[in-house]
Amino acid sequence: MRPLENDLFLRACRREPTERTPIWLMRQAGRYLPSYRALRERYDFLTLCRTPELAAEVTVQPVEQLDVDAAILFSDILVIPEAMGLMVRIEESGGPRIETPVRTASDVARLTVPDPEEKLSYVLDAIRATQERLQGRVPLIGFAGAPWTLFAYMVEGSGRDDFRRARVLVHEAPHTAHALLEKIARAVARFLHAQIEAGVHAVQLFDTWAGVLDPDGFLEFSLAYVRQVIEAVKATAPRRVPVLLFSRGTAAWIEALAETGADVLSVDWTCDLTRARRQTEDRVALQGNLDPTVLLASPEVVAREAQKVLARFGIGAGHIFNLGHGVLPETPVENVRRLVDTVKRESPQYHVPRGNASL
Amino acid sequence: MRPLENDLFLRACRREPTERTPIWLMRQAGRYLPSYRALRERYDFLTLCRTPELAAEVTVQPVEQLDVDAAILFSDILVIPEAMGLMVRIEESGGPRIETPVRTASDVARLTVPDPEEKLSYVLDAIRATQERLQGRVPLIGFAGAPWTLFAYMVEGSGRDDFRRARVLVHEAPHTAHALLEKIARAVARFLHAQIEAGVHAVQLFDTWAGVLDPDGFLEFSLAYVRQVIEAVKATAPRRVPVLLFSRGTAAWIEALAETGADVLSVDWTCDLTRARRQTEDRVALQGNLDPTVLLASPEVVAREAQKVLARFGIGAGHIFNLGHGVLPETPVENVRRLVDTVKRESPQYHVPRGNASL
Repeated sequence: MRPLENDLFLRACRREPTERTPIWLMRQAGRYLPSYRALRERYDFLTLCRTPELAAEVTVQPVEQLDVDAAILFSDILVIPEAMGLMVRIEESGGPRIETPVRTASDVARLTVPDPEEKLSYVLDAIRATQERLQGRVPLIGFAGAPWTLFAYMVEGSGRDDFRRARVLVHEAPHTAHALLEKIARAVARFLHAQIEAGVHAVQLFDTWAGVLDPDGFLEFSLAYVRQVIEAVKATAPRRVPVLLFSRGTAAWIEALAETGADVLSVDWTCDLTRARRQTEDRVALQGNLDPTVLLASPEVVAREAQKVLARFGIGAGHIFNLGHGVLPETPVENVRRLVDTVKRESPQYHVPRGNASL
Repeated sequence: MRPLENDLFLRACRREPTERTPIWLMRQAGRYLPSYRALRERYDFLTLCRTPELAAEVTVQPVEQLDVDAAILFSDILVIPEAMGLMVRIEESGGPRIETPVRTASDVARLTVPDPEEKLSYVLDAIRATQERLQGRVPLIGFAGAPWTLFAYMVEGSGRDDFRRARVLVHEAPHTAHALLEKIARAVARFLHAQIEAGVHAVQLFDTWAGVLDPDGFLEFSLAYVRQVIEAVKATAPRRVPVLLFSRGTAAWIEALAETGADVLSVDWTCDLTRARRQTEDRVALQGNLDPTVLLASPEVVAREAQKVLARFGIGAGHIFNLGHGVLPETPVENVRRLVDTVKRESPQYHVPRGNASL
């Protein structure tokens, strides 16, 4: 692989010293960018995901326009349920819908664990096309939905109603739930493996809906499968790449999340970064966690709140600046620029200059 | 006041020994009950809230039909925003709406801190009517929305969109936010004081949306005002009654919540009761926290999961069984009966018999 011009993000993932805190943003390629909206006038969301050249173009837009320290592949977590055999309608407004939700053991039996080279080759092609465009400027992050979060959509059919059906299913039919989660976990691990082979520098698991489960349910149906996927990826990956885990609504579970094998915990905006760092004792890097609604306020507020996040993590290696959830569509681009500039300008004070490590 | 036939709930609030764990359920008076739906065919939701005899009838239905250990007044948290001067549309489906949301400092200035005897007398009359019907069988719980949760609805206008406008306002215009929260806090404290005067045996604050704030925001805009309300209620109440605090999405903040002055923390279903008890060192009673979706599964699952909750709290005084959020409208009544029966039958093993306290 081509050597990287900017490897701040990867060094921070490994908790190695950096000159400043790297920054990228979840959903940094998306509707808030005029250049993205211009493309969307010509192509629908699914076409952008499915056409490697277009996905690559969208992926590099924030790198070129905002100078962030990493790119994340433009795609959607529901490509896996679709590749497993479900009818998925991926829409930007109203949220994703699964037309054929999974409800019974026979529904589960019908699903396949897809070969990514066959069913998800468009994603792998998009990775290769993106690397061509990036030319090693910054690392490229691949991703997948975590098993529980994919399960929640696959059972519920949509992201509404706090996933009541999914929660009932784990209580009512735990064997069926485990059978489905096993299949999803194998599909996710194979998919991440293929993404690494195709050239991504890191992978992130999104467990966006981990926070709807009760304590037993979280440990048994979310955390156990995150661990299983990470172990499988680490055991088989052709190269050792950092694994990032975004788990939302689980600020009370930081210690447990740090034991999953993830190299980086990406925490939501409700999480206290100071406490999370103390709880994990610097055994993992932390990513986050500005409230995305801060980017809807004035640029001055953006700068002030960004500095608070830097201060909350404090001095030392192992912080990757990000939002606590994705960029909201109504976010002014000017505010995102201000955020990136603020982190670049203000973060060096939190890093020990090379050669002064003893200070 | 009339002596109570069943004071298990109040003794558990004070962490005094009880023979078994008391149980009541948030939204126990509501749509899942056929007798409630029958009334709703004749009267709309607001008429039920506003007519003391009807509100009293709805309030006592679960006591008579399910034999729970406490009644909670049938009402809505948005009666305060309405009494402060906003146009509120309280609907059961689609969630509540505020037609005239608060957005600016002059919007805040127009709001009044209502005299409950004047603007909310229908609630106080409903309390008196309920006490007439209850005849001291079980305690009656009064309630109000916590300041931040009322703020969130008042600024957003509805319960949709994760309260983005409310979160932007606290970042963009913190002075305006504090001015509004101060007014709300005074209104809530006066309202709870009046409810205690009218005869409730305990009051519960509902901070249902505390979990949408970042750490600084939670401490500054949610927790500080909960503390202020509890201090005001305790300082002025004509009688000393237990104060219960339901805070949702804040399982990471249990220690801080226990320092608000609340006698009981009501925790959501994502909270680990064992850990919460250890964190609070029995300084507060704990209420909760069965996942409400368990009541949508089979009666056997209900019984099994209820026993898990009892075991999670463990042996000793200071547990009030409840759900981690309100009863869902589609809940079968049979399952609620099974839940109440299970708690009554299985909980004595977690309580030391009187006279054997040294065992």
